[in-house]
Amino acid sequence: MRAALQVLRRAPRLRHQSTAAAQKTVDDAFLASLEALATTSQSPDVRKLHGDDESHHEPIPPEVVAFPESTEEVAAILKLCNEQSIAVVPYGAGTSLEGHIQASRGGVCVDVSKLDQMVAEHPEDLDCRVQAGMTRKAVNSALRHTGLHFPVDPGADATIGGMAACGASGTTSVRYGTMRDNVLGLTAVLADGTVLETGSRARKSSAGYDLTKLFLGSEGTLGVITEVALRLHPVPMCVEAATARFDSLEEAADAVQALLLHGVSVARCELLDATAIDAFNAFSKRNEESCPSLFLEFNGPTSEAVAAHTELALELCADCGGRDIKRSQDESERDELWKARHELYYASCALKTNGRAIVTDACVPVSQLPGLIQATSRDVKENNVVGPCFGHAGDGNFHCILVYNDDDDEDYLERLKQVNANLIERTLAAGGTCTGEHGVGSGKKAYLLREKGAAAIDAMRSIKAALDPRGVMNPGKVFD
Amino acid sequence: MRAALQVLRRAPRLRHQSTAAAQKTVDDAFLASLEALATTSQSPDVRKLHGDDESHHEPIPPEVVAFPESTEEVAAILKLCNEQSIAVVPYGAGTSLEGHIQASRGGVCVDVSKLDQMVAEHPEDLDCRVQAGMTRKAVNSALRHTGLHFPVDPGADATIGGMAACGASGTTSVRYGTMRDNVLGLTAVLADGTVLETGSRARKSSAGYDLTKLFLGSEGTLGVITEVALRLHPVPMCVEAATARFDSLEEAADAVQALLLHGVSVARCELLDATAIDAFNAFSKRNEESCPSLFLEFNGPTSEAVAAHTELALELCADCGGRDIKRSQDESERDELWKARHELYYASCALKTNGRAIVTDACVPVSQLPGLIQATSRDVKENNVVGPCFGHAGDGNFHCILVYNDDDDEDYLERLKQVNANLIERTLAAGGTCTGEHGVGSGKKAYLLREKGAAAIDAMRSIKAALDPRGVMNPGKVFD
Repeated sequence: MRAALQVLRRAPRLRHQSTAAAQKTVDDAFLASLEALATTSQSPDVRKLHGDDESHHEPIPPEVVAFPESTEEVAAILKLCNEQSIAVVPYGAGTSLEGHIQASRGGVCVDVSKLDQMVAEHPEDLDCRVQAGMTRKAVNSALRHTGLHFPVDPGADATIGGMAACGASGTTSVRYGTMRDNVLGLTAVLADGTVLETGSRARKSSAGYDLTKLFLGSEGTLGVITEVALRLHPVPMCVEAATARFDSLEEAADAVQALLLHGVSVARCELLDATAIDAFNAFSKRNEESCPSLFLEFNGPTSEAVAAHTELALELCADCGGRDIKRSQDESERDELWKARHELYYASCALKTNGRAIVTDACVPVSQLPGLIQATSRDVKENNVVGPCFGHAGDGNFHCILVYNDDDDEDYLERLKQVNANLIERTLAAGGTCTGEHGVGSGKKAYLLREKGAAAIDAMRSIKAALDPRGVMNPGKVFD
Repeated sequence: MRAALQVLRRAPRLRHQSTAAAQKTVDDAFLASLEALATTSQSPDVRKLHGDDESHHEPIPPEVVAFPESTEEVAAILKLCNEQSIAVVPYGAGTSLEGHIQASRGGVCVDVSKLDQMVAEHPEDLDCRVQAGMTRKAVNSALRHTGLHFPVDPGADATIGGMAACGASGTTSVRYGTMRDNVLGLTAVLADGTVLETGSRARKSSAGYDLTKLFLGSEGTLGVITEVALRLHPVPMCVEAATARFDSLEEAADAVQALLLHGVSVARCELLDATAIDAFNAFSKRNEESCPSLFLEFNGPTSEAVAAHTELALELCADCGGRDIKRSQDESERDELWKARHELYYASCALKTNGRAIVTDACVPVSQLPGLIQATSRDVKENNVVGPCFGHAGDGNFHCILVYNDDDDEDYLERLKQVNANLIERTLAAGGTCTGEHGVGSGKKAYLLREKGAAAIDAMRSIKAALDPRGVMNPGKVFD
């Protein structure tokens, strides 16, 4: 995956409007003050890395990167920046797909990667508290001895703080929910340096405004998250995987609906169209039939419990036209399947030499999913672009990976953007959301306004202005 | 239950500081303008009813009650009130337990009970949209033909709008989550009459600030909720109930922890202490042994799936010292058990003639539950007051029902309040929340500040000021 990533790093980016990247907002006096508060770097390489995410969006480096080692250091940095109206861009692992870390108004990137410690483990209560810069894989390694895990899995090894700020989710959300369902509370530093504690260790609460949820999906525009209290889940004693092939997307989507309507406990429920299967086969050297397919996983505390759900699920798949249904309890086979599924973004990019992609992220009511995927596939074909579709069908969430490379002319890129725009229009018409799990960043601002309407954006703006009156926190993201 | 309720309505209330109940804020010109917008009433009986909830808090009637029949009428009323800085108190079914509907600054009560229609049913996507004044039982009646239900069950037949505004939950939250987990979006009217649409029909989203969640638990202080989009769940094909008795609260709580740590899918998980069993027996004419007991329910799509979880759960209960373990698939027996459980509030009040109660609502990490219940029971005994304990053990949430009546002197009431205060202090020390599901209202304001700290309350106040700059929406609730 690392090799693939390096290929991607060399690939071109789409050009957007010219930016304020070159703008100089910090002077020597400010830098001296900042250096007194935390480790910093102005090295071109470090700055470049910190303005560059995994998306197609243009990188915009910050002027300086700070590496705080405590909430107190973050607070001191923010206070200084706020006093001088210098922009602050929080940074986790840089795995964003919507330009969240572009320093569009220059300023300071606050890299929380040194905040990487487990703060408290409470296995007896199925919760823990981690620093925001700990990645999800590091959290799960640290929890290994407890028999518990944190199952939210966006694919990338993102930081917990980044996942929280973005409202991330992934393949397991159909079973365990998203970040919004699995964060019990957090520590966030507001623009003026105030340290805010939200939530509690209780599994539920009706104690006032849900400030925790307000920060989940705020994308660094309200403050910097420095600690996150996580809800944990038992590592299932028994896991079973299954695959099913279908002659049409409708049949596959019918099967997904049937699972949900029957209350089957499904841990992963991924739908791949024929093009995605092709990408998957080519990249991961597999040999799946090129047709709409479901990849399913079931888990539970006993083999009887898992078998009961698996059997019902596979009956329902068969009823909906599923064929070549295979189940497997073999762990290495399953790991290989999911590894390949997680690499599907890179596999899709590899459909073109040195490919890079616009990653769409529509989420609609499940009944609307087959129609939307089909219309998108037709659009992809008619526009003669490359765009496999796959996604978290149990949530109604899917990605069309619109691939391009250096050889593509402006016309190709325009067609690609048009397919994306059509997809989002259809998504909104179907009662869905333009971003199921990737957030808004700078990339989806216009669509957010279309989706939510002016009143909602105004309400968001009022809240932002109330908590960040000088507008220093991650400016230019979520809304203008 | 209706008879019990009438008894309670006659019972006395605790005296609080003198209120602004008699304050006159609306004049004839305002009333004429209001009458032009919606049906209104100034009848003393109607006003009295609308200032009076099911709690021990002093009733404070509004000056006038409006009965809007559409979101537009609500918007017109709020615009008028905002222009004249008249307070607005939203009202659903009046089942609040923390004084949410006290008209502490006079003004207009906006009763949404005429907004009682199903707006849209989407059984194929497991969602629906209802008007805010529809009660949860009415929603479930309307859904009966779909095979789906809305499972959040606070006991009382509250309106969906009230449940949303309060962040309610109940016996089924361990399985299905709270209102915060089951509302996909809503329509809310802001103080100035702006109609805000939040969320979408997608099952998940990372599209900007989560305004839906901000309204869940805002208790009418940010606006009036007029429509709610609900996530539905299949009515389980198979349900099994079980009861287990224990010699100590620790053993019972150990069993609950074991269920959670093993990932048992439990649909309800209620713990009753010996005093609660006594109240239960006396009120519901049952004959359970007077000892700590668990009432459990399991459900799923097939009898095999349910049996697998039930069997594991009952083994774990036995391992933890559970005895007299009984399972039952009989629906009427189960309905009777849960009816009796739901009447436990009234049963507790009936421990004293014409009893009324302070209902506590602590929620703590599950490991802290037995210690907290035991300390509270000891406190109840030492202070010689009446206070059975029971609750939603799977969530770490329990209620100590502190009962009093007309014959109790000031000293008794002071002791009662002291037990409540001690309970909340212990809850906060254990990392919990002072209100698991009843909200803050006027009753828990001081404790909210203790729980969340000044920075969090300041953040809530800033958000309130941003969305309701004149402070007309349900003043005096959540925070001062």
